[in-house]
Amino acid sequence: MDVQLLTWVIPIAGLAAIAFALYLASDVLSRDKGPQAMQDVADTIREGADAFVKRQYTTIGLLALLGAVLIGIVIFFVETRDVADVPELAGLPIAIMTSIAFLVGAACSMASGIIGMYISVRSNVRTAAAAQRSLVEAVQVAMRGGAVSGFLVVALSLLGVWAIFSVYGNLIGDVTIAEAPFLIVGFGFGASFVALFAQLGGGIYTKAADVGSDLVGKVEAGIPEDDPRNAGVVADLVGDNVGDCAGRGADLFESTAAENIGAMILGVTVFGLATANNWPNPELWIFFPLVVRAFGLLATIVAMFFIRGSETENPMNILNRGYWVTTILSVGGLALTTWLMMDTAGQLPTSGIAPWVFFFGAGLIGLATSVAFVYITQYYTAGTFRPVREIAEASKTGPATNIISGTAVGFETTAVTAITIGIALIASYWLGEQAFAGIEGAVHGGVFGTAVATMGMLMTTAYILAMDTFGPITDNAGGVAEFSRASAGAREITDRLDAVGNTTKALTKGYAIASASLAAFLLFSAYIDKVNLILGNQIENGTRAAGTLLESVNLADVGVFVAALIGAMLVYFFSSLAIRAVGVTAQSIIVEVRRQFREMPGIMDYTQRPDYARVVDITTRAALRQMVAPGLVAVATPIGVGLLLGHEAVAGMLMVGTIAGVLLATVLNNGGGAWDNAKKFIEAGHLRDENGEVIGKGTPAHAAAVVGDTVGDPFKDTAGPSLHVLVKLLATITLVLAPLFIR
Amino acid sequence: MDVQLLTWVIPIAGLAAIAFALYLASDVLSRDKGPQAMQDVADTIREGADAFVKRQYTTIGLLALLGAVLIGIVIFFVETRDVADVPELAGLPIAIMTSIAFLVGAACSMASGIIGMYISVRSNVRTAAAAQRSLVEAVQVAMRGGAVSGFLVVALSLLGVWAIFSVYGNLIGDVTIAEAPFLIVGFGFGASFVALFAQLGGGIYTKAADVGSDLVGKVEAGIPEDDPRNAGVVADLVGDNVGDCAGRGADLFESTAAENIGAMILGVTVFGLATANNWPNPELWIFFPLVVRAFGLLATIVAMFFIRGSETENPMNILNRGYWVTTILSVGGLALTTWLMMDTAGQLPTSGIAPWVFFFGAGLIGLATSVAFVYITQYYTAGTFRPVREIAEASKTGPATNIISGTAVGFETTAVTAITIGIALIASYWLGEQAFAGIEGAVHGGVFGTAVATMGMLMTTAYILAMDTFGPITDNAGGVAEFSRASAGAREITDRLDAVGNTTKALTKGYAIASASLAAFLLFSAYIDKVNLILGNQIENGTRAAGTLLESVNLADVGVFVAALIGAMLVYFFSSLAIRAVGVTAQSIIVEVRRQFREMPGIMDYTQRPDYARVVDITTRAALRQMVAPGLVAVATPIGVGLLLGHEAVAGMLMVGTIAGVLLATVLNNGGGAWDNAKKFIEAGHLRDENGEVIGKGTPAHAAAVVGDTVGDPFKDTAGPSLHVLVKLLATITLVLAPLFIR
Repeated sequence: MDVQLLTWVIPIAGLAAIAFALYLASDVLSRDKGPQAMQDVADTIREGADAFVKRQYTTIGLLALLGAVLIGIVIFFVETRDVADVPELAGLPIAIMTSIAFLVGAACSMASGIIGMYISVRSNVRTAAAAQRSLVEAVQVAMRGGAVSGFLVVALSLLGVWAIFSVYGNLIGDVTIAEAPFLIVGFGFGASFVALFAQLGGGIYTKAADVGSDLVGKVEAGIPEDDPRNAGVVADLVGDNVGDCAGRGADLFESTAAENIGAMILGVTVFGLATANNWPNPELWIFFPLVVRAFGLLATIVAMFFIRGSETENPMNILNRGYWVTTILSVGGLALTTWLMMDTAGQLPTSGIAPWVFFFGAGLIGLATSVAFVYITQYYTAGTFRPVREIAEASKTGPATNIISGTAVGFETTAVTAITIGIALIASYWLGEQAFAGIEGAVHGGVFGTAVATMGMLMTTAYILAMDTFGPITDNAGGVAEFSRASAGAREITDRLDAVGNTTKALTKGYAIASASLAAFLLFSAYIDKVNLILGNQIENGTRAAGTLLESVNLADVGVFVAALIGAMLVYFFSSLAIRAVGVTAQSIIVEVRRQFREMPGIMDYTQRPDYARVVDITTRAALRQMVAPGLVAVATPIGVGLLLGHEAVAGMLMVGTIAGVLLATVLNNGGGAWDNAKKFIEAGHLRDENGEVIGKGTPAHAAAVVGDTVGDPFKDTAGPSLHVLVKLLATITLVLAPLFIR
Repeated sequence: MDVQLLTWVIPIAGLAAIAFALYLASDVLSRDKGPQAMQDVADTIREGADAFVKRQYTTIGLLALLGAVLIGIVIFFVETRDVADVPELAGLPIAIMTSIAFLVGAACSMASGIIGMYISVRSNVRTAAAAQRSLVEAVQVAMRGGAVSGFLVVALSLLGVWAIFSVYGNLIGDVTIAEAPFLIVGFGFGASFVALFAQLGGGIYTKAADVGSDLVGKVEAGIPEDDPRNAGVVADLVGDNVGDCAGRGADLFESTAAENIGAMILGVTVFGLATANNWPNPELWIFFPLVVRAFGLLATIVAMFFIRGSETENPMNILNRGYWVTTILSVGGLALTTWLMMDTAGQLPTSGIAPWVFFFGAGLIGLATSVAFVYITQYYTAGTFRPVREIAEASKTGPATNIISGTAVGFETTAVTAITIGIALIASYWLGEQAFAGIEGAVHGGVFGTAVATMGMLMTTAYILAMDTFGPITDNAGGVAEFSRASAGAREITDRLDAVGNTTKALTKGYAIASASLAAFLLFSAYIDKVNLILGNQIENGTRAAGTLLESVNLADVGVFVAALIGAMLVYFFSSLAIRAVGVTAQSIIVEVRRQFREMPGIMDYTQRPDYARVVDITTRAALRQMVAPGLVAVATPIGVGLLLGHEAVAGMLMVGTIAGVLLATVLNNGGGAWDNAKKFIEAGHLRDENGEVIGKGTPAHAAAVVGDTVGDPFKDTAGPSLHVLVKLLATITLVLAPLFIR
């Protein structure tokens, strides 16, 4: 068999995944929608979500168009022959190609978000209906609904990168396969750009709705949480989809896109090595990231058939079964691809072991890191372990000690996070180095090792994302069951699924953080490769002195140090803006719900239906307005630093900004998750006083835990996830605009 | 006049400052102690403080002895001829010299802390007594008491460095003046070591006492804050001295010592340049930092006579008057020293302007940065501006929104902090480069420029520290007046002084952060110089390949990146341990006060006196036990990373750890300060509802603000200040142990 045929697995797996997603969607849509009462509630949520999606994606679409035009103009004027990565295309061609790649990336990300949301808000009522009959069926409906989003995100990212790479690499004049990866970075930037606004807008919306409706309903009007009389609660239910499905989907779309492109850029160096050594099929080193991803998709399709179990089982076990199937099949796929694609024609490194074995090991490290983060996140945010118990205990002495304890836990989680990432990076780098040790002309083996680890980690993305969207679907199913006064049995099932959904949402954030950290090194190296390609061209043309390649990013240089300081600061400042945006948006909800209580007195005795849609609309507008400031800061700061301090300094900013962003996101995500579950721990009756009496709902300790939960909301669902996106945006923006920063 | 005589200003100013401190001390001690009731209260505080000081410094002294022995042993075995900075002293001599320097540094720091505390806890009652008569007199007593600490810290640091430099440089065999600065780094490490434990122990003690006695008194027993029936309140009053006087004193002792030594090491390079170009008195470039510091001390002595004003004036104005006198005289001193000491025998750089002019400019930037931070801190933590008002407004909707808003403000403060530091670094670096531009063989001019800026900034340290210790003295004076039921007039004066003291304490933290950030670059460069001295020796001896000097700290190297990640993580993990230590210690106070309420029923009706001393003793023991874990983590992590990843990686850790530490400390200090003042803002009756009615003490909004204040306590007084010390400890530890890390 011709090994080159292996690249066809990319479109085949991509299209298969889309077909499978369509099958899952039609399966979910064909299911029972339950009694009319359920459908009425679900319709309200759906209408709100559709309205949000329409307005949000119209706004983002317009911003993306504007962005594409601006980028085209900038590149046209700045990326002259002298600073272009592919000089023969300098000027107009490269400007148009980058703008198109940007738009295609943005469009694919938006399409996966829109379709995923479309199914997500239609799966909730079907999950609630299924819960009337069977736990397993409810799990299957919710998981299939979530998987639509998961498959679309990964498949569209894969197909998008592959298609634009194929077009730019084959159909345009003189472009070689070694140059093509540099031409498609615009795709990653487009994905980042959409992700930034999708995550910011969604994150602000969801938590403003949550905090705002709690404050005006529970605190001011004295009615229970999630009471249908509160006009804000539908906005809250809509918000869960908006943040976790659309937001996190765009986040991981960006990860898979940007990291694929970065890995392909690194593959170019190995391509050169393979060509020089006459290894067969050198171009496969460039295609490798895409093929591995394709096998990950196929593994996930198979895993969907393993989501089954018994009615009495913990639903988390059912989901874990599928996750392990995905992981184990991915190991097989990884072994196959490394073995087939990394053929060195018998040439061996110093150790005498074939290079593919080392890269297979690096990929395994990536998969293991993914598993490690799933368990680390559980330890820090699940009620069965020390951290959450500690926060619940601290609630006994009031909200202040609850907050102090939660902060300490949040800070503490950085330790194991950083150490795990450190070990994964050093081990995969070492393996990569060994793979090419002693082979003449070999550079970059170590960095390519970290890239393979990242690819290994991202093989399970579709499954993880399906579990993530499982979260808002089951959360909504619970709301639908509650609103429609479904049977106690059904509500008990949706409650159990909701608790599992909280865990899967937390896991996904841990996974997103870990992949962003592993990828940072890869994207950083891709940036250096791109800069050196440009500098090398300049040296060749005599416009630059020899020996001035970017050999190192020197922290002892004052410009690099200051840029690093600004990068670390940006992470805090951006989070500050995002957190503040939640407060401002929540205010507009409070004002509107107050008005409805005042002007529609029938709401309180259930004779009048609150105007849910109006609150959704007001929240949508406010959230979209509030996302502009942090979005602009995120885009403008790296550009400003690059222009002022140059290409080496901006690399320092990227690197240290990534470190700071990953750690702060860890603090915010895990701290918020732990606060949330400390409250649930108390509500479940697990907290006791010295005499062994339960301290439960309605006690001062519970009230203190509610404060912690509310504080954690914008941390874990707005600022934290937005930081994932910021970190990757820093990478794609510098990658695309590198020519601007060359000094 | 022989310019070399200028170096004699170092011991003269140092001794003059000590003499002046003794004069101030005797002046304060000779003053009226007020009525017997005041003296009784003050005696209780004093006894508690004396007990703490005795136990704390015994512990720290023992730890320092142990540290000195361990360092001696490690250096004896590791710093062989091959990796020694001064090879002819390798082995035993350098081990003994480093150990002695370490001990002298530790002893000087401890001495200034002990004497400062001695006066501080005796000034409080005299301030209270003076407040019965006159505001201005009370300000003078408190400021003079505080200045004892300020002068001793700076003078002992100056004399200590000068003495050990003179002894090692002149009295020991072959040591040249260019080698001596490297031999005294142990002094800085000793100072860091003491500062770490003084700040940690003091910070844990003060906030545990505060939080613990509030929880058990106000929340549990329902008696007012600071009520004499609460056995914990004396511990709280003692705590203010322990944290702000002893802790911050040790912090700034370390700053002045470590940064002087670092600047002298950088001066060695300029010394080489001066020798090569036959400039007169090349050694003055090494002495420069000490001479500048001496002029700063003299300026502060003069400024003490300007602390005067009218009875109706805002006391802050009186203190500011002295600060401005110090600053203006320092500008004069800076001009004089740069002009006299930086003589290039008429040789000029490209610009044709004498080098000293540029360095004078760099020093001015340092002084300006100091002023800028004073105002930035005021903006973010004083009730007259937007941030504090925003937090107070957010308190209307409860504790959760108060915490969210305060976090957003804390995060926001990093922006102006980072930008100010960035501008100061780049500007002073640029000036330093211009100073030597075009002069043959000139390297390091830019770095030396940042060193001069740091020196300029630190000229006002003694005055800043006097203002800082003014804080606990006036705070205690308020407590004494309250306990002894002094006249309303006296209490009104002590309340006003207490409010000013809160501001000055916040300012000092801003100043400490800014100086640590400026100094980071200097200390980092000193580390690189030391490593290259060793590597250069190895290359000369043929034990190392040529061209392997540490030319850059390359963030793109995987080891450096991982070390940087660990450094940034350490900052969070260390803070987590420090914050948690406060909680654990507070628990032991709560248990003891509860016991006293239970077993001594007469306390409640004032017929029985609570056992204050026992609470102080228990708090002291608990705080000292709790400081061990974070202390060990702080010391062990850089050593571990250095041993595992080598000398370049540890430099990355130092640099990124510093960036992360400075920013997190800014967040914690300013967030905490803003929460504190939002509470005071509400208590002062400045918060109003929509109808213009005052929302004051006792309202739910006030209760929410109290939660924020309590959360901010361990942030701003334990974790934040401990991070200042951590950051500098990273620098001194790597500087001393560099030979261990050489690969």
